[in-house]
Amino acid sequence: MSYKTVSKKLTVEKLSDKGVKSCESQALVAQPEKCSPAGSFDVNSSTADEQVAESFIRQAMEIIVDEAVKKATNVQEKVCEWHSPEQLKKLLDLELRDGGEAESEILQRCRDAIRYSVKTSHPRFFNQLYAGMEPYSMVASFIAEAVKTNLYTYEVAPVFTLMEDAVLRKMIKVIGWEEGGDGIFNPGGSLSNMYAVNLARYRYCPDFKEVGMFSAPRLVILTSQECHYSISKGAALMGIGTKNVYTVPTDERGRMIPSALEEKIMLAKSEGAVPFMVNATAGTTVLGAFDPIDEIADICEKHNLWLHVDACWGGAAIMSKKHKHLLKGIHRVDSVAWNPHKMLMASLQCSAFLVRDKTSLLQHCHSARASYLFQQDKFYDVSYDTGDKSVQCSRKPDAFKFWLMWKALGSRELEQRVDRALTMARYLAEEIKKREGFRLVLEPEYANVCFWYLPPSMRNLPESPELWKKLHTVAPVVKQRMMKKGSMMVGYQPLGEKANFFRMVVISPQVSRQDLDFVLDEIHNLGKDL
Amino acid sequence: MSYKTVSKKLTVEKLSDKGVKSCESQALVAQPEKCSPAGSFDVNSSTADEQVAESFIRQAMEIIVDEAVKKATNVQEKVCEWHSPEQLKKLLDLELRDGGEAESEILQRCRDAIRYSVKTSHPRFFNQLYAGMEPYSMVASFIAEAVKTNLYTYEVAPVFTLMEDAVLRKMIKVIGWEEGGDGIFNPGGSLSNMYAVNLARYRYCPDFKEVGMFSAPRLVILTSQECHYSISKGAALMGIGTKNVYTVPTDERGRMIPSALEEKIMLAKSEGAVPFMVNATAGTTVLGAFDPIDEIADICEKHNLWLHVDACWGGAAIMSKKHKHLLKGIHRVDSVAWNPHKMLMASLQCSAFLVRDKTSLLQHCHSARASYLFQQDKFYDVSYDTGDKSVQCSRKPDAFKFWLMWKALGSRELEQRVDRALTMARYLAEEIKKREGFRLVLEPEYANVCFWYLPPSMRNLPESPELWKKLHTVAPVVKQRMMKKGSMMVGYQPLGEKANFFRMVVISPQVSRQDLDFVLDEIHNLGKDL
Repeated sequence: MSYKTVSKKLTVEKLSDKGVKSCESQALVAQPEKCSPAGSFDVNSSTADEQVAESFIRQAMEIIVDEAVKKATNVQEKVCEWHSPEQLKKLLDLELRDGGEAESEILQRCRDAIRYSVKTSHPRFFNQLYAGMEPYSMVASFIAEAVKTNLYTYEVAPVFTLMEDAVLRKMIKVIGWEEGGDGIFNPGGSLSNMYAVNLARYRYCPDFKEVGMFSAPRLVILTSQECHYSISKGAALMGIGTKNVYTVPTDERGRMIPSALEEKIMLAKSEGAVPFMVNATAGTTVLGAFDPIDEIADICEKHNLWLHVDACWGGAAIMSKKHKHLLKGIHRVDSVAWNPHKMLMASLQCSAFLVRDKTSLLQHCHSARASYLFQQDKFYDVSYDTGDKSVQCSRKPDAFKFWLMWKALGSRELEQRVDRALTMARYLAEEIKKREGFRLVLEPEYANVCFWYLPPSMRNLPESPELWKKLHTVAPVVKQRMMKKGSMMVGYQPLGEKANFFRMVVISPQVSRQDLDFVLDEIHNLGKDL
Repeated sequence: MSYKTVSKKLTVEKLSDKGVKSCESQALVAQPEKCSPAGSFDVNSSTADEQVAESFIRQAMEIIVDEAVKKATNVQEKVCEWHSPEQLKKLLDLELRDGGEAESEILQRCRDAIRYSVKTSHPRFFNQLYAGMEPYSMVASFIAEAVKTNLYTYEVAPVFTLMEDAVLRKMIKVIGWEEGGDGIFNPGGSLSNMYAVNLARYRYCPDFKEVGMFSAPRLVILTSQECHYSISKGAALMGIGTKNVYTVPTDERGRMIPSALEEKIMLAKSEGAVPFMVNATAGTTVLGAFDPIDEIADICEKHNLWLHVDACWGGAAIMSKKHKHLLKGIHRVDSVAWNPHKMLMASLQCSAFLVRDKTSLLQHCHSARASYLFQQDKFYDVSYDTGDKSVQCSRKPDAFKFWLMWKALGSRELEQRVDRALTMARYLAEEIKKREGFRLVLEPEYANVCFWYLPPSMRNLPESPELWKKLHTVAPVVKQRMMKKGSMMVGYQPLGEKANFFRMVVISPQVSRQDLDFVLDEIHNLGKDL
């Protein structure tokens, strides 16, 4: 007997048989309407069978542990079982029908969903800026799902409201904002970067919130050419326009050139436009480059510009005494986006937006004061109702995932994770330099190791546009072969003038030197005939 | 032995001892830098102990089933255990420290996080527009968390990409867009409504994406005065401005008055502004009112305006043959926001944005074509890489929660859930009319039952501003008392000129008539001395 069928077995009793009276005129009723006759559903008891539900959940949890935890992290298993979209559609039987399915079928669908998904916690998954299995954060995410709540108010989310506050305060402390600040967790770093744009714009001119930008001077955002695409997406969404994102050239390592920034600021001003914010990137997506925050902060101070740091990827370095120098100057900036779901391995999503302001800018910029949620006549301190700081209404308690993990590991273990990941990246870079046919794109500064693989047929060709053209086709073929084999997943991309190259990102403590050696061996095996 | 401490017991081997060579000049290396000496971390083997992790996850799962499923849905238990923010901070020991905690401590923290959270799946939780425990969707959310992936590309999320597509197609079919459409799941209905604004603006003038709105005519959005606040938040975020959201008066039941809409459109035009979209609400937040879509669609056609329907709350009615008339005309609109996480009980969050357009407007409006994710030289059909339709980068596979639930229940059971919920609301309204001291604000059209409770001391007072002023103070006190007792949770709010009233929303199939009777009895018990 499944959960869903219980209702059908219960006595159906018509409300109309119970003598529910027809509508009566009520003094305070705005508009008494004709009553529709009550339906024919059981109202006398629950139509949900909790025991059946509980049994289903327990069985599904077994499947999750077996398939999505044990098997998914087992290096002997495949990272992915590749099927084309057409094949997979058939395997999954996606159609949604009028009738439901039996419990056993649904449990099989759970198994299949896991089976055909990419195993991002597998030690040979290096395809994105997240990887690995983090048990504390995973459990926290299960609890958040089971408890099923949103972070509007203290009333409905007391635990998670306080935890978000505690995590934000700690992150602010780590950043070094001695006088404190404010913040909020968002569904992804893109939104955090957009929050920065919106706050910077609001500080420049609070009136835009009410009147829009129709008679505003042309606003300009400055960011490096290597920045994340969310800056452009945000500019488009927010009515600023992608062309008003001025890209600042980077040096050969992908870092913003401060003098070039100042030139672009002057250029915008000379055009009659208003530069209002600079986005510096701490850990660019592809190369892992860190813009020089301190020098950029000098320029922003001089020109009175909001300085935001997109540290979604590189923010983790601040946990490490050894590597925090990469973020030197971050204590001076106005806002920071930092995703603990990347290098620190919190469950997806876990993205913090932090702001140094202490004047409730976040609240003023975003609030709409909905009276059905943010009543001011509550019996507790409503400053704990933080929902109106958000542009969302429903908002998940993502901070809890980071909180529980931090409690379990302590700052020291988080630091060690970062240090080990960068040590592994260093090892990989050295290994690449030793191996024939592998060439680093550049020395890694962070966890990104970018390299080309040259099959034997290309190794003795002279450096020429033809070689690069040929080389450009290698990574896509190697990628296709690794996916179809399921042996590992490594990303590739072109960058500017550079032909397609692989980008390896080491994160998980489960990754060993053998896995990195395997990646290089496997790339060679998969691509040596090209 | 806990997961986190394993690394400390492994042999630490310095890379430098392994004879890693110093940097060599590489022909293709952009800038060979001085190598930093490798760190002192174990690189030879995983520093994660999967067995310890697995054991921890299993123990935590037991806690989740016991506390967040069984106990949380037990009507004999409290809905919430109230503590003030100050008390709860002490109980939770929120501080994040340098050292980590033992497994047993972390498991206790899991228990505490559940214990002090509000039990939104309890049959006496009626505080928001979501409630109840949905086992299939809950399990799907656990799987999504365990599998840990983002919906950028088919490559990294093959299963969930296809499932999202299947769910969107089915929803589009249910809406009645016979020629199909497009869509995307978003983190909450607010963002879905913002997508509508952005698409409507893009259709009006695609150039805004590039050049911004600095030289644009003043754009105006039209929406009812009862609409969700996300329309205003979106207007602020998107540079349109809250003052350019023109609110259209509603009738006594909270429904937009079509003739008033047309007047506002003419007003905007007479001011030289450009109305470009109308937001109709299907199921307003407080009253549960449905704007007359068909009549509004006529007006939008006449004036060539984008018509969006915010059906986040009321969209579920379309699953019911009996109640779908509430959404009559929805097949004519341009876009719809519909949150299966509300009435249909999918796990939070599960919010769909649907658009009737077939010209890839969603893609054109939002895309940034990041070359590191959306490579065009992949070996499969990259039209399955749907991530660039989003303003997010990381995006959760929320559609899976709805898909699995729909598979398990079938359309028929979803229909019955809606029908039963509205039957229960009808029962409650009738009961309120029968009981002394209770007065409906209006006859419910949907699942929202809005009412005042008058303590005996106020029942014989003449209708006057003084009575309303007194009555306004009743709901907050009753709410405080129910929270402190933990017996139930029901929301209240003022609305326009109306004094604070309770808003009950019946959703969960676990709710019985006894629960509704209890709510009314308990309100009386808690408030009779006022």
